[in-house]
Amino acid sequence: MNNVRAAIAAWQSQIGDHAVSVAETTREIYQTATFATTQQIPAVLYPANRDEVQACMVIANEYRVPVYPISRGKNWGYGSRVPVQDGCVVMDLAGLNRIVAFDEDLAYVTLEAGVTQQQLYEFLEERHSNLFFSATGSATDSSLVGNVLERGLGEGPYGDRFAYVCGFEVVLPTGELVHTGFGRFSGAKATPINKWGVGPYLDGLFTQSNLGIVTQMTLWLTPKPKHFEIVWYAVEDDHKLEALVDAIRFLKLSGVVQGGFVIANDIRMLSYHQQYPWAESNGQTPLSPELRQQLNQTWGDGKWSGEAAIYAPNHAIGKVVRQTIEETLAPLVDKLCIFNDEMLHLSSSAFAAQYPGLDQQEAIRWYQENPKRGIPNDLSMSMMYWRKHMAYPHGQWDPDRDRCGLIWYSPAVPFRGSDVRKAVNLLTDIAWSYGIEPSLGLNCITERNINIIAAIVYDRDVPGEDERALCCYKAMCQALNAVGYIPYRLGIYAMNDLPAVQDDYQDVLYRLKQTFDPNHILAPGRYEPKR
Amino acid sequence: MNNVRAAIAAWQSQIGDHAVSVAETTREIYQTATFATTQQIPAVLYPANRDEVQACMVIANEYRVPVYPISRGKNWGYGSRVPVQDGCVVMDLAGLNRIVAFDEDLAYVTLEAGVTQQQLYEFLEERHSNLFFSATGSATDSSLVGNVLERGLGEGPYGDRFAYVCGFEVVLPTGELVHTGFGRFSGAKATPINKWGVGPYLDGLFTQSNLGIVTQMTLWLTPKPKHFEIVWYAVEDDHKLEALVDAIRFLKLSGVVQGGFVIANDIRMLSYHQQYPWAESNGQTPLSPELRQQLNQTWGDGKWSGEAAIYAPNHAIGKVVRQTIEETLAPLVDKLCIFNDEMLHLSSSAFAAQYPGLDQQEAIRWYQENPKRGIPNDLSMSMMYWRKHMAYPHGQWDPDRDRCGLIWYSPAVPFRGSDVRKAVNLLTDIAWSYGIEPSLGLNCITERNINIIAAIVYDRDVPGEDERALCCYKAMCQALNAVGYIPYRLGIYAMNDLPAVQDDYQDVLYRLKQTFDPNHILAPGRYEPKR
Repeated sequence: MNNVRAAIAAWQSQIGDHAVSVAETTREIYQTATFATTQQIPAVLYPANRDEVQACMVIANEYRVPVYPISRGKNWGYGSRVPVQDGCVVMDLAGLNRIVAFDEDLAYVTLEAGVTQQQLYEFLEERHSNLFFSATGSATDSSLVGNVLERGLGEGPYGDRFAYVCGFEVVLPTGELVHTGFGRFSGAKATPINKWGVGPYLDGLFTQSNLGIVTQMTLWLTPKPKHFEIVWYAVEDDHKLEALVDAIRFLKLSGVVQGGFVIANDIRMLSYHQQYPWAESNGQTPLSPELRQQLNQTWGDGKWSGEAAIYAPNHAIGKVVRQTIEETLAPLVDKLCIFNDEMLHLSSSAFAAQYPGLDQQEAIRWYQENPKRGIPNDLSMSMMYWRKHMAYPHGQWDPDRDRCGLIWYSPAVPFRGSDVRKAVNLLTDIAWSYGIEPSLGLNCITERNINIIAAIVYDRDVPGEDERALCCYKAMCQALNAVGYIPYRLGIYAMNDLPAVQDDYQDVLYRLKQTFDPNHILAPGRYEPKR
Repeated sequence: MNNVRAAIAAWQSQIGDHAVSVAETTREIYQTATFATTQQIPAVLYPANRDEVQACMVIANEYRVPVYPISRGKNWGYGSRVPVQDGCVVMDLAGLNRIVAFDEDLAYVTLEAGVTQQQLYEFLEERHSNLFFSATGSATDSSLVGNVLERGLGEGPYGDRFAYVCGFEVVLPTGELVHTGFGRFSGAKATPINKWGVGPYLDGLFTQSNLGIVTQMTLWLTPKPKHFEIVWYAVEDDHKLEALVDAIRFLKLSGVVQGGFVIANDIRMLSYHQQYPWAESNGQTPLSPELRQQLNQTWGDGKWSGEAAIYAPNHAIGKVVRQTIEETLAPLVDKLCIFNDEMLHLSSSAFAAQYPGLDQQEAIRWYQENPKRGIPNDLSMSMMYWRKHMAYPHGQWDPDRDRCGLIWYSPAVPFRGSDVRKAVNLLTDIAWSYGIEPSLGLNCITERNINIIAAIVYDRDVPGEDERALCCYKAMCQALNAVGYIPYRLGIYAMNDLPAVQDDYQDVLYRLKQTFDPNHILAPGRYEPKR
């Protein structure tokens, strides 16, 4: 540990004592996730800018101390702020929070790694911009860059978020600096607007990897639609799922709908609406079939329900797009509801007739402040508290602190009813067999692929649940790997859970790591399976 | 050269005498481009499959003989089949011409490197598929994979072609094998439908590079639209270009038009319609302003003209999209013409009234067999013969053989009228100053970027023209580099013409090359500037 002490001293002298924390309470926070972890963190670094990130990496190499960068650390369910391996110093990039460039005409913004969703939203609002961004399902104070680097999914037309960014600024593990795309040429006009640049396209190397620290990137924005509607739909009967999936594939593939569709099961929706019904269940878990059905009737979401937004440049186009969606979905769903500006002007009785069971003010707020418009919110935080006995900590959500249990498992599945059915059945059976309610979201963002996002939600304060949840995850992963549905994204618990490789990929990945990080000091083990 | 002889013997014994050519006539063909080259080629290899590609690379390493892979060698204007450096053995992948997989529902096809546009078109026709692909502007017998790897541009909704492929199979320079995306996992269901896979995204490394030989990839297809129209527009006045560009950016950014727009200048259009007017000009070049104007009036294309297609899943959507396009463009253009199925049923007099000056049968054929529908054709070949005295070799186009002179120069420019104007003026002035007609196409494929494709067209049989054309290219490149418009794609003459780099990119690129190709035997110099 002498080298660690020496490195800490060097970092302190480089970026200041205030920017290097070794306090037990701080380290504790960075060692805590939404599941069991044993990793110890010797210190946390808070560089204020890219130069300091570079200087810190030079020191890390000098003393051979591994560094684990996080942007905002809101990677709940996949590892929060916790490094994959023990003994890493965490580098918190929250201080890199500048919005570096913005262009209203060409619809882009250049951001540092620590810029939050809320910050970008407010930036655009202040400028009365006609542009919006693809918000993620995560919290308002989560990082946009961090989510892109994990190839996360978002709302809106640019939901496959990594597809709509370019011009990375990357600090290599050695402290060297690289700009991707056209960015290596000072003054190149196409840096923020051309994805590929000239020569090999390198951006992908720095996503889901431990090959570099992305300190800056350009994020593309979308003009606000002149016509916006939200389509909500639900099916009562589980067997209607396959046909629904195939119909949505048609809508995506033929270009009718440019944004994503989400299809959630009843458990997922329940966990947004309320916490576990402890009283009604007499404290018994998991949820009984009777209680499940009763709660479904209360909330009215059906077995599967979901949303999609219509973004159109004018009302004429919006209207016919809506008609096409309605004609496609109506024969397949039990409920179909359109939310649009007309709703704002309905009398309360007309509203009640058209949207039975909905609170008018709440529905209007939900419609007007929807993440599909690029307005981030914390509404999805509640689901992590599903099995907790404490009340929702509104405005102070912190699932790590509150010992919420959450493990995500997210296989990629072909956009086809039969594939989705097979995967969903396996996940559902495995979840119940571990005493956990199957909480499933089907993210239909691109045209051919669905990312199933399964949540294993539990209470870390219940003895044995940490172990049980991890076993449940392992069982899901093993069962789905066996039939070819592989995770699209990995938690820190999952880096070695991919199937065996049939080619020379592992060697190549190792050599790439060696090339970029000869001392293996950047985020060791992250997306780097053991050989 | 002893090692070359030994390598040839080893290749002959490995893949057969018939698959290794050292014939002078063959080598001559592979040494010829549409501009001056001096590179000598010791031999040409014709592997029949991936295993043979791997075995050939093992031999290349053993004897340290550089190998330069081509897919179909139709890279006219950028280098045809000719290696960047002298002394490379060419590996012709035409033998890898299998269509490996096809899925009508999920809309993809998996191709080997040698599959041609025409081959895929016929494959889909035979199966009565409801799918089509993004055809390139190149010839029917050009490779689809080759174009994607150069990050070429295509017609149709998937014109940014590299954005719509995945699942590469790559033979590394060492002979090792790597599958990108989910492909490294045998049986992974998402390999052909998920672009990114899990872990670092590697596909980009193998585009515009010399890091691997892509032997196979999956190409995404689009459902044939239920409603298809082509919008044609022209402006008479050069000064209307800026406003037109800005309006088209609106149509792209707001999602009205999913396919690309092309805007061509009068010279470009002229060179499609006819060869240089040798008689009218008394053999003088370049074209005089008077003759230029006279020919423009004959063909009626205006100073700038272009096309875009409407792809809609039904007529209701198609109709309002067309209205939006018409409303947007009409105030800005001098001519606006819509070609759609209604045209097929017009009487000849009604046709003549609606489409003055057009031949009805020809227009119908053009509309029905348009590359925008995924039907490749050779119509763009004629432009390379603009300055030739020989007649068009219909059905036997071969610009290398026929000593057509063509050098492409393709800077990336922000999608903004003022940027386009600046670049266009520079290119125009430079072309004329070298006695060459400025032949410009503005490829508006994505939302924020325009690739200007300038053609330097000449006759290689005229002494001095090879040198003059190269000087013209150099002058364009220098002038546009200086103001920040950098080429998006490089010819073999251009690999060292990029501006100086402001970061550690060059070192990283060199180390990457070292990692993938320790003996530097794959396509040396290709997208690998001298350090």
